[in-house]
Amino acid sequence: MNTVGKYLCDRLKSLGVDHVFGVPGDYVLDLMDVLGENSLELVGTCNELNAGYAADAYARVKGLGAVCITYGVGGFSLVNAVVGAYAERVPLVVISGAPNSSVRNSRNHLLLHHTTGDYNLQYSIMEKATVASVILTNATQAPSQIDKAFAACLHHKRPVYIEIPQDLVNQPCKPCEPLEIPPPNFTDTEALKEAVQEAADLLEAAQRPVILAGVEFHRFGLEEKLLNLLETTGYPIATTLLGKSCISEAHPQFIGTYVGALSRENVTGRIETADCVLCLGAIMSDMNLGGNTAKLDQNKLINANSDKVKIKHHFYDPVFLGDFIDELTSKLTHKEYESLDIKPAYYLRIKEFTPQPEQKITNLRFYERLNHFINDGFMVISDTGDAIVATIDLLMTKGTDFIGQAFYLSIGYSIPACLGAGLASNSRPMVFVGDGAFQMTAQELSTIIRHNLNPIIFLINNDGYTIERVIKDGTYNDLQPWKYHQLPRIFGKSWSCEVRTEGELEEALTQAKANTDCVSFIEVHLDRFDCAQGLIRLGRALRGKS
Amino acid sequence: MNTVGKYLCDRLKSLGVDHVFGVPGDYVLDLMDVLGENSLELVGTCNELNAGYAADAYARVKGLGAVCITYGVGGFSLVNAVVGAYAERVPLVVISGAPNSSVRNSRNHLLLHHTTGDYNLQYSIMEKATVASVILTNATQAPSQIDKAFAACLHHKRPVYIEIPQDLVNQPCKPCEPLEIPPPNFTDTEALKEAVQEAADLLEAAQRPVILAGVEFHRFGLEEKLLNLLETTGYPIATTLLGKSCISEAHPQFIGTYVGALSRENVTGRIETADCVLCLGAIMSDMNLGGNTAKLDQNKLINANSDKVKIKHHFYDPVFLGDFIDELTSKLTHKEYESLDIKPAYYLRIKEFTPQPEQKITNLRFYERLNHFINDGFMVISDTGDAIVATIDLLMTKGTDFIGQAFYLSIGYSIPACLGAGLASNSRPMVFVGDGAFQMTAQELSTIIRHNLNPIIFLINNDGYTIERVIKDGTYNDLQPWKYHQLPRIFGKSWSCEVRTEGELEEALTQAKANTDCVSFIEVHLDRFDCAQGLIRLGRALRGKS
Repeated sequence: MNTVGKYLCDRLKSLGVDHVFGVPGDYVLDLMDVLGENSLELVGTCNELNAGYAADAYARVKGLGAVCITYGVGGFSLVNAVVGAYAERVPLVVISGAPNSSVRNSRNHLLLHHTTGDYNLQYSIMEKATVASVILTNATQAPSQIDKAFAACLHHKRPVYIEIPQDLVNQPCKPCEPLEIPPPNFTDTEALKEAVQEAADLLEAAQRPVILAGVEFHRFGLEEKLLNLLETTGYPIATTLLGKSCISEAHPQFIGTYVGALSRENVTGRIETADCVLCLGAIMSDMNLGGNTAKLDQNKLINANSDKVKIKHHFYDPVFLGDFIDELTSKLTHKEYESLDIKPAYYLRIKEFTPQPEQKITNLRFYERLNHFINDGFMVISDTGDAIVATIDLLMTKGTDFIGQAFYLSIGYSIPACLGAGLASNSRPMVFVGDGAFQMTAQELSTIIRHNLNPIIFLINNDGYTIERVIKDGTYNDLQPWKYHQLPRIFGKSWSCEVRTEGELEEALTQAKANTDCVSFIEVHLDRFDCAQGLIRLGRALRGKS
Repeated sequence: MNTVGKYLCDRLKSLGVDHVFGVPGDYVLDLMDVLGENSLELVGTCNELNAGYAADAYARVKGLGAVCITYGVGGFSLVNAVVGAYAERVPLVVISGAPNSSVRNSRNHLLLHHTTGDYNLQYSIMEKATVASVILTNATQAPSQIDKAFAACLHHKRPVYIEIPQDLVNQPCKPCEPLEIPPPNFTDTEALKEAVQEAADLLEAAQRPVILAGVEFHRFGLEEKLLNLLETTGYPIATTLLGKSCISEAHPQFIGTYVGALSRENVTGRIETADCVLCLGAIMSDMNLGGNTAKLDQNKLINANSDKVKIKHHFYDPVFLGDFIDELTSKLTHKEYESLDIKPAYYLRIKEFTPQPEQKITNLRFYERLNHFINDGFMVISDTGDAIVATIDLLMTKGTDFIGQAFYLSIGYSIPACLGAGLASNSRPMVFVGDGAFQMTAQELSTIIRHNLNPIIFLINNDGYTIERVIKDGTYNDLQPWKYHQLPRIFGKSWSCEVRTEGELEEALTQAKANTDCVSFIEVHLDRFDCAQGLIRLGRALRGKS
């Protein structure tokens, strides 16, 4: 029989979702039963915020993710994950159980557990952090209410909220049919034509054009168009940090990840001396711009986003990014490789690395070593802090395999994200997480172990919030020193160790590579002020502006 | 020099706050420096939700609590703690750092990290879950903005939100003077007079009156008035679960904690056969009413809350609870003890308990044993689930020493609450937490250890979400089985063990009692379906109504 609960499951499955993350609670148990009956795997997390982070990472890999939680205590615990997904354009479906319609609509002011007595509160908060929100009202309307929310989620690549009263879950409704997602045909064709002509003129006239590509290539599935543009023009390309790995970083035109003053000097130099920057699908946030240290001259900038194009100081709106790239590519000619001053980032890996077994590991040497260890079988998940900055130049040679909250920057994102991404992908996750970030969400390591995932997790123990120490130090940056490497065995089957020298690191890497059937957890001891050079520069930049 | 930041600190200190809970982040570092300079201890927690729970428990003990977090990622992670405090009338001050006023007001659409670019979002969400919310605008107005928020917090006993842009923290402002909190003089004296007369007539005519007292006695500091009423009338008294321990449970008129069908039969029997129930300061939620199994005849009910009185089906509004009790007490006469059918709860403890060393511990025997172990030196913190239900009848012989989210029911509340309550009180915390609840917030045990607190924590390992199993079982109620008792040593100096028999429990209790200088963590293994009888009845009640 088709029911509202089954409809929701069928819709999720029709869009490639096989796992739903969540925590049980009485308002949602009926729905959780229906998930199981419809071959959706409910992945129980230790708490709801972690479920949200896991579903967010799952969505980054699969193109859609879902979290299912109980009313009140569940929904309100999830808000930061939803806002993060909104900021970074992640298509996340939030499904909340809720009290029976009859109870919430009654006038006898009954106070139900997990509420304040205001049965509109969760909806009204979620509404602010999503592109569509709905409380399902009855079984006749539920299918179209559900479908509108999913369509908005996929169109905007941002979270949506569906609240399902307990008594609706098993009510019969119409069967689920293929979702009609209107194509992004909102482009104003006249605006497009003019924008393309203006952009093409600027680019054709430029001697040193460069492309700066962002996360919207991932989100809107436009990677092929980007490769086509690269091949047609021969231009060098850098990506933003949030957009990192939207193309293979082994591409001969890829010069590096550009994050303002955080980037390697030849990346900064090439971008900032360009006479025309074609910036495509990037979220121009302070962090993506290296704490606003990026020097991008507006007068040399063509900035196309998912729904509009800005050239210098004027806008063409609405113009879909995909349409703009297609038309622009058809207008541009190929430039000579030699004239374009391209230093492919791929040469980072060609540089030799020889371990010095007795030498204490430094931040610099650790990430250099990892750049040689990593291969196409891995995806990288970097947590906020020193880790995400230090992994800017890890070379990701397969597309779409770098995950980090590079704009919204929640610390603690990586461990739950490893759970979500690990279940979504065949790649082996490699996680870089600092001690401060790890303490935020450490328990989700147990769920990674429970699901027999085999990530390699590098716990960078630099004795506190190193990124904050760089900005401003105080006792608030100290942490209780856990015996981190002993924690995995508390949670279940795992392999872990701690390393202090390059020799110990080599042994650990060898062992971790071989451990394909369980978690490998390597605690790397670094000095508390031994951070990436980029981070030191970021701290200076943030302090200078505060 | 007096600054906005110092003003905020002085206001907190003037109201008895010595500790502020929080997590650092760049938008709030300047303010955190000011906290330290003004002898407020910043208690760094592992994550923000836990800071919120800790500050909530601190407020329950001290009458005011504060949490200080960074913008966006910090504030949005905290929402569930704020909503919980709102529901349970906890005076919690939420202080958030924020970007500079100039940046957020600029029109160049800069996207700052930890935001979506909407600089009103956090305020607009917090506004929905608090009784006063403010973004400080300038140093001249900040003192009165701050004071209005504090006054609302103390008047309503509900959370307030203060957002302080980074650049305001060190701006000079006027010094802090004593806060004028208007007395609760909102009572309509004519309504009061009529309500008291009607209530007194009903009570004087009743043969078997009873008092049911709730949490507002704690919150509004009305305990003395309650004792006076008891002495004057001789009536028996029960409390709700949320109101548990608002008087000493050794009081000869105290008959037990009334939670509908969850309560002991003689409590249920006495309350539900009363010919007049005087219900005072209680939040009439479904959980407080035993999953709506309470049988309280509206025609025999006088229900006075902090701001109004309801008799049968009509309201007197506004009437302050304290005024109502004073006037009512003066009208009532003393009834004969023998006629009132009082079975004091104190006799629970007089019953003998003889350990059977080889016998496997059961839920029933465990809590019976603890009822003899506990003494006036302890406060009890019970987490949501089987734990809070099983501790209904723990006899709290000193007032205000039972803490639990008995209405809002967030699982995971107890461990952070132990941190907050432990720092607020001289009593030794005793925590009852199930395995599911513990996994939510387990990391905060490390902060308890860091601050050298000495709680006794009973981790009730019943292999999953037992409370959910009772309502509806499924694989979603299973948990990854941690080696819980080995966890404290990962975090730092502590003592821990696991117990399965009554003999092992005796040894553990002896050791824990002696460990006054560190955490004692006792993992108690119970069968997964061995729960309190009350919980089984609750499950039946909830299922019957869903």
